[in-house]
Amino acid sequence: MSTQTERRRRSDGERSRRTILLTAARLATVEGLDGLTIGRLAAATGMSKSGLFAHFGSKEELQLATIGAAEEIFAEDVLRPALEAEGLERVRALSERFLSHVGRNVFPGGCFFASAAAELDTRPGPVRERVVAVQRQWMDLFEGAIRTAQERRELDPSVDPAQLTFELNALLGEANGLYLLSGDPGAFDMARRGIADRLERAAA
Amino acid sequence: MSTQTERRRRSDGERSRRTILLTAARLATVEGLDGLTIGRLAAATGMSKSGLFAHFGSKEELQLATIGAAEEIFAEDVLRPALEAEGLERVRALSERFLSHVGRNVFPGGCFFASAAAELDTRPGPVRERVVAVQRQWMDLFEGAIRTAQERRELDPSVDPAQLTFELNALLGEANGLYLLSGDPGAFDMARRGIADRLERAAA
Repeated sequence: MSTQTERRRRSDGERSRRTILLTAARLATVEGLDGLTIGRLAAATGMSKSGLFAHFGSKEELQLATIGAAEEIFAEDVLRPALEAEGLERVRALSERFLSHVGRNVFPGGCFFASAAAELDTRPGPVRERVVAVQRQWMDLFEGAIRTAQERRELDPSVDPAQLTFELNALLGEANGLYLLSGDPGAFDMARRGIADRLERAAA
Repeated sequence: MSTQTERRRRSDGERSRRTILLTAARLATVEGLDGLTIGRLAAATGMSKSGLFAHFGSKEELQLATIGAAEEIFAEDVLRPALEAEGLERVRALSERFLSHVGRNVFPGGCFFASAAAELDTRPGPVRERVVAVQRQWMDLFEGAIRTAQERRELDPSVDPAQLTFELNALLGEANGLYLLSGDPGAFDMARRGIADRLERAAA
């Protein structure tokens, strides 16, 4: 086998793994990460169970790989554009990109991590730990941007960054939940109004 | 069989049904309403599957009866005490009773309806409809109490009641979610601070 052929094969394998995980991540926001068995994924992708076993040895491995794929999508769609801004603009961009991400139905069950957190909150183990870590990173990113905004005097330095992070995330989470239940994009407008109001009051 | 014996039997049946549904409701907040099969419940209660089939003909019937049981518990623990107050005090009491309900781990997976909503948001059918209706009632109760508070001039009449309901519920939902993920009751304090602040600004 020539090096070129081998490279192509490996890249086909990568592509196919990516396609499988994209299907898995979308499926998980509807049927839950726990519903994500190799059998269920075989049915959804039309691949053989043995083929999927070759990619992922166990259900847990499949779940962790799926979370990794969802992280990549979230990073590309929400974090990367928002991280181009700094301070207060970054806080606004993180919020706005999140609402847009949910509103564009990138995942059919809304925010992948909100869905996973609600499912796994009471189920200890490495899958839950991974979801908690992603949530923690998101909160830290928010809090860091708020601190920068305070250093730049875009926000009042006396505001508690953890409290403001909590309140802004509450509005984002409620918009995600209400939109999924009602199908009404008015939920995003209510979140936007609440966030604008909260940031205005926290202005220096 | 004497009338008395029959009455006792019927009341034993009611008690046993209640006990089963209490177990079912607690289980559902951990394993999901979809994980609530008659087989799983038989294992959790130590009852026979045929005995459970006699109580609930199908999984869907079991799920709907479980939601009914959770509604009763929520009504007793949160709504009844809060409805003793009116207007602004009712808004405060609904919020405080909700946070206390979650903090006392009445259900191991936090708010039953938040858990059910997150699970069912993308799954159409009568079970989802029932959960949506309970959520709608809760929001309406909040909004009604806010309107009364405005009529009594406890809150500024120019405040949008739907928007304020959205923002207060966002804080309650975030406290529930964060507490379940982190185990840290500090989440309740952050919600309390946010709610007090929001109500203070909405004061007439």
